[in-house]
Amino acid sequence: MSESTPDPVRTIGPVRVVGAGLLGASVGLGLSAKGIDVIVHDASPTALSLAIDYGAGRKARDTDDPALIVVAVPPDLTAEVVAQELKAFPDALVTDVASVKVAPLSELSLVGADLSRYIGSHPMAGRERGGAISARADLFIGRPWVIAAHAGIPPTQTAVIERLALDLGAVPVRMSAEEHDRAVALVSHAPQAVSTLLARRLADAPESSLSLAGQGLRDTTRIAASDPALWVQIMGANSTYIIEVLRDIRTDLDVLIHSLSDQEANGARRSLAQILAGGNNGVARIPGKHGIDRRFAQIVVKVDDSPGELARLLTEIGEAGVNMEDLRIEHSPGADIGLAEIAVLPEAEERLVGVLEERGWKIAGAYL
Amino acid sequence: MSESTPDPVRTIGPVRVVGAGLLGASVGLGLSAKGIDVIVHDASPTALSLAIDYGAGRKARDTDDPALIVVAVPPDLTAEVVAQELKAFPDALVTDVASVKVAPLSELSLVGADLSRYIGSHPMAGRERGGAISARADLFIGRPWVIAAHAGIPPTQTAVIERLALDLGAVPVRMSAEEHDRAVALVSHAPQAVSTLLARRLADAPESSLSLAGQGLRDTTRIAASDPALWVQIMGANSTYIIEVLRDIRTDLDVLIHSLSDQEANGARRSLAQILAGGNNGVARIPGKHGIDRRFAQIVVKVDDSPGELARLLTEIGEAGVNMEDLRIEHSPGADIGLAEIAVLPEAEERLVGVLEERGWKIAGAYL
Repeated sequence: MSESTPDPVRTIGPVRVVGAGLLGASVGLGLSAKGIDVIVHDASPTALSLAIDYGAGRKARDTDDPALIVVAVPPDLTAEVVAQELKAFPDALVTDVASVKVAPLSELSLVGADLSRYIGSHPMAGRERGGAISARADLFIGRPWVIAAHAGIPPTQTAVIERLALDLGAVPVRMSAEEHDRAVALVSHAPQAVSTLLARRLADAPESSLSLAGQGLRDTTRIAASDPALWVQIMGANSTYIIEVLRDIRTDLDVLIHSLSDQEANGARRSLAQILAGGNNGVARIPGKHGIDRRFAQIVVKVDDSPGELARLLTEIGEAGVNMEDLRIEHSPGADIGLAEIAVLPEAEERLVGVLEERGWKIAGAYL
Repeated sequence: MSESTPDPVRTIGPVRVVGAGLLGASVGLGLSAKGIDVIVHDASPTALSLAIDYGAGRKARDTDDPALIVVAVPPDLTAEVVAQELKAFPDALVTDVASVKVAPLSELSLVGADLSRYIGSHPMAGRERGGAISARADLFIGRPWVIAAHAGIPPTQTAVIERLALDLGAVPVRMSAEEHDRAVALVSHAPQAVSTLLARRLADAPESSLSLAGQGLRDTTRIAASDPALWVQIMGANSTYIIEVLRDIRTDLDVLIHSLSDQEANGARRSLAQILAGGNNGVARIPGKHGIDRRFAQIVVKVDDSPGELARLLTEIGEAGVNMEDLRIEHSPGADIGLAEIAVLPEAEERLVGVLEERGWKIAGAYL
């Protein structure tokens, strides 16, 4: 290949990122780390300079001619900002990263925006905390990135957004805006609603009841701590599909209450058991450790339960030149052996397993 | 003190454990580790010998005269087995560890059991997996252990169960059977129901929707994978209080569906925002990192982002003679610094922080 052939999975800059919150700043950090020229813009000068300080990109210049624009503003501003950017940069392709996809597309269509240069997208990534301060270059690694191209989009344009997702380590997933909104209603918005409804019950509960809280309650209510202002927008924009899921939940809830109210009734126990078993079946369908949500490969190594052994393991991983992305230890106090679960980039897994086995470590498991 | 004075926080054996599942075997392991004579019994010879192999205790002998009996059988067998044990061992104090407390007490009262020797209790501990194979001596460390003494119980007897809880590292919490059942309906049984209702929606969902699943869905549905047979019993036995919570949830669910259905209606957005904010308030009331559920103190150390540095940290922790119970690393690939979150027994925290600071490590935080 001649030198002028561009890298097939390398986004062509400059990329203009509008909105320097968690997602925008993370896109900026990730692309900058790849050496791509990133322009960051935010209506708030404070947010903007914070993102630039963090290394998310540079300030805009009058001469900028971005090839690609990523709009990462709150959902209810998305269509308006996308329309502005389409006008201001008549040669650029514009995408957005909002959690809903039908609403921005219809709004843009209504105002007569140039849809041939707009493709909605949605990286399925986030953190508890928002803002550029929580941004991470690796936020998208291994996460699905939905690309919701509409009928008016040429395939070459869709490929640009795919390249963006791949450059950030994400897994591009093509679906229509409707498919996307229906999917996130189920896997993201309904869980938010249900978690919230449960958490609300704690607001007036006696202190002594809360003192018995365990991991089950913590897990089921964790996302109920999310920003209400953001979620009013998301739920409002995707209400049709969310209502469908919530109505089905309500039907089951009535059956559950009914079967608990009259347990001697014919079939009450069976209907209770069926509801609980149905929950089992549902959980089993979630892609697990082996699903695309895992950024890293996991290697589980048996370690004698002494701090010196673990230090030796880590030293030898370092000597192998492999970067450890995460480490968890599980052992029962008093037991003679523990397990170290090491996360590494998928491409390093096989070699590290080889090196460790060579040095006498027992590998309990290795998962991609 | 004379040599005959018993250790004030040491359970007097032999202790008979009936039921060699997760909880029973864990009680056996924990007490055996303290040198207390434990007799294990289970209706299943296979379960029994497995628990004995794991070190949970020894087989029963005809001459056994246990001072204390812990009944750890499924909820719907609890009252029956407690009654049998009270009869078979007329000098023993009997407790159970079932997840509901009103039902066993009423059943025992109905059959005229000797309630002066029965105290219901409930350790708030568990694991995803059941059986002796999942048992751990440290299962109860730092967890609340509810002691639901009824009016007919002398304080000296209650103290015996408190001693048992303390010997297993748990935190004794006194409440009535009614208070307990109301509390667990809220913090354990309603979360189970809600998680199940949500997970059921996944059973027939398209594969492509599930491929977008993230941590929020995983967390909210994790407990929906629990054993339906066990939960039919628990929910059946605590239906009154569970229904109260579920009815309140249904009321809120109706408001939520209504406000999403007609967003232009007067106050619809406000009522949606109020529900979401109410969820925030509820979550904020759950005892967090500083609550009694945490077994270990956490020390957060800044570490240069290179494997050699982490190995040196662990080596130096080992040299300080401190056992690390868990370790988590957080760092952004490409960043120059990472954080190591080290879990240690609370009593070791202060000393380890001192040693590490002396050696030049930067402590980002230390939490009991």
